Amino acid sequence: MIEVADPADPRLDDFRDLTTADRRPDRPGGRGLVIAEGVVVVQRLLASRYPVRALLGVPRRIEALAPDLADRDIPAYATSAEVMAETVGFHLNRGVLAAADRAAPVPLPDLLATARTIAVLEGVGDHENLGALFRNAAALGVDAVLLGPGCSDPLYRRSVRVSMGHVLAVPFAPLHDWPAGLDLLRAAGFRVLALTPRADAVPLSEVAVGGERVALLLGSEGPGLTEAAIAAADAAVRIPMSRAVDSLNVATAGAVAFYALTEGARGGTARQG
Amino acid sequence: MIEVADPADPRLDDFRDLTTADRRPDRPGGRGLVIAEGVVVVQRLLASRYPVRALLGVPRRIEALAPDLADRDIPAYATSAEVMAETVGFHLNRGVLAAADRAAPVPLPDLLATARTIAVLEGVGDHENLGALFRNAAALGVDAVLLGPGCSDPLYRRSVRVSMGHVLAVPFAPLHDWPAGLDLLRAAGFRVLALTPRADAVPLSEVAVGGERVALLLGSEGPGLTEAAIAAADAAVRIPMSRAVDSLNVATAGAVAFYALTEGARGGTARQG
Repeated sequence: MIEVADPADPRLDDFRDLTTADRRPDRPGGRGLVIAEGVVVVQRLLASRYPVRALLGVPRRIEALAPDLADRDIPAYATSAEVMAETVGFHLNRGVLAAADRAAPVPLPDLLATARTIAVLEGVGDHENLGALFRNAAALGVDAVLLGPGCSDPLYRRSVRVSMGHVLAVPFAPLHDWPAGLDLLRAAGFRVLALTPRADAVPLSEVAVGGERVALLLGSEGPGLTEAAIAAADAAVRIPMSRAVDSLNVATAGAVAFYALTEGARGGTARQG
Repeated sequence: MIEVADPADPRLDDFRDLTTADRRPDRPGGRGLVIAEGVVVVQRLLASRYPVRALLGVPRRIEALAPDLADRDIPAYATSAEVMAETVGFHLNRGVLAAADRAAPVPLPDLLATARTIAVLEGVGDHENLGALFRNAAALGVDAVLLGPGCSDPLYRRSVRVSMGHVLAVPFAPLHDWPAGLDLLRAAGFRVLALTPRADAVPLSEVAVGGERVALLLGSEGPGLTEAAIAAADAAVRIPMSRAVDSLNVATAGAVAFYALTEGARGGTARQG
């Protein structure tokens, strides 16, 4: 733990003016560092594949992370809440931050070789929905996330926070050539399902997913999946809804569908439709 | 449509300084009016059992609501976005508001007599989580919500907005005498299930809910249900989770469980545990 008293100390540059610096174009990949906020999310960053550069926090929070920092050569800068706020540009009530470099994305073939259940997103531009989707994917047995057109950056600070740091653990990759790129998934043995509220889609509980590998396409709240994406899937599936409720939030719909598909894959509940 | 140009016009008092007035103690029940924001939520308020007092909006939004206002004797005050912002106290990008009186709660016995699936909340104090829970309850076939101790007001403006107005359609009532009041549910024929991440709880997919009436207890994110609430239930149930993800957001966990229980009730997917 290294004590720092001057908010202008250049050793704190990774944490400076985060509301803008997060998107600085001068960083690897041109998209800024990975920033984790709070003890739990910093722990998940330290356990991830992203190379952590430094921590900044109040002494009490850094002490709480001592077991996670043992045998790691990572500088942890300790200071007051006031100096932190002045450096970062806003008040943080979580008391600790960590900064890491981005890592090269997992190559798509590697990802497809090992995953059983994949979420494929189209047009999920909202950082909070994207973070929530990763949290739900992690909790409900989704092995990887593919990002189609119109998705925002899952490693943006707000997504990391809303995901509770799980975006750092679930591998993801962009899927180019949309929607033709879905053929790569099919070639790898995945059944491609499109989640949509359309009445002619098959209820999820009637989808048999016994031992199959499944890729679930999810579109953004509001417009939903494009016609092209739905047409490129093997089948359209839906969550039965009542009371004329037109849609769930995309992360919530994802959670329900992940549950239905992964419980089904475990041989528990799905039946032939 | 009545044109108004003066933000101080007393006819707009229902909409004045909403960030504070919403909790004014001088309103029926001491808890303020029901406020709906945006065309869709105002439509749901107009279709609800709450007596609508007035609308305030820019002309274009009020015109969009003309079919919903036909044959209704409700004043609709039209003004500019600037006058609206000055009256309300902040800028509204949804362009229209409606104010309604609170209605007497549905008596608990009436509610229990007709519902098949009920959500029972303990300690859900976050207005956004509460609103999201109502939205998910409405979408996934939950007939009513009971509010145990520590829950906030579902009719607070932010809950109404996050619920997309569905809190205005799903009946709710307080459940006093906690957790002993759960006996009332059992007496009405409900099986009382407590949702918890505890390892010794039964996976949801192994809960047989054939034709049964079910009440699902949900606790707040973080602490979860109290020991007393879990002990008062007939069984503890859980959503199987992976990757050491400790919990889902309470509204998301609710959505998954509502899906699992209501799909099960339709005879589709549940099997005997």
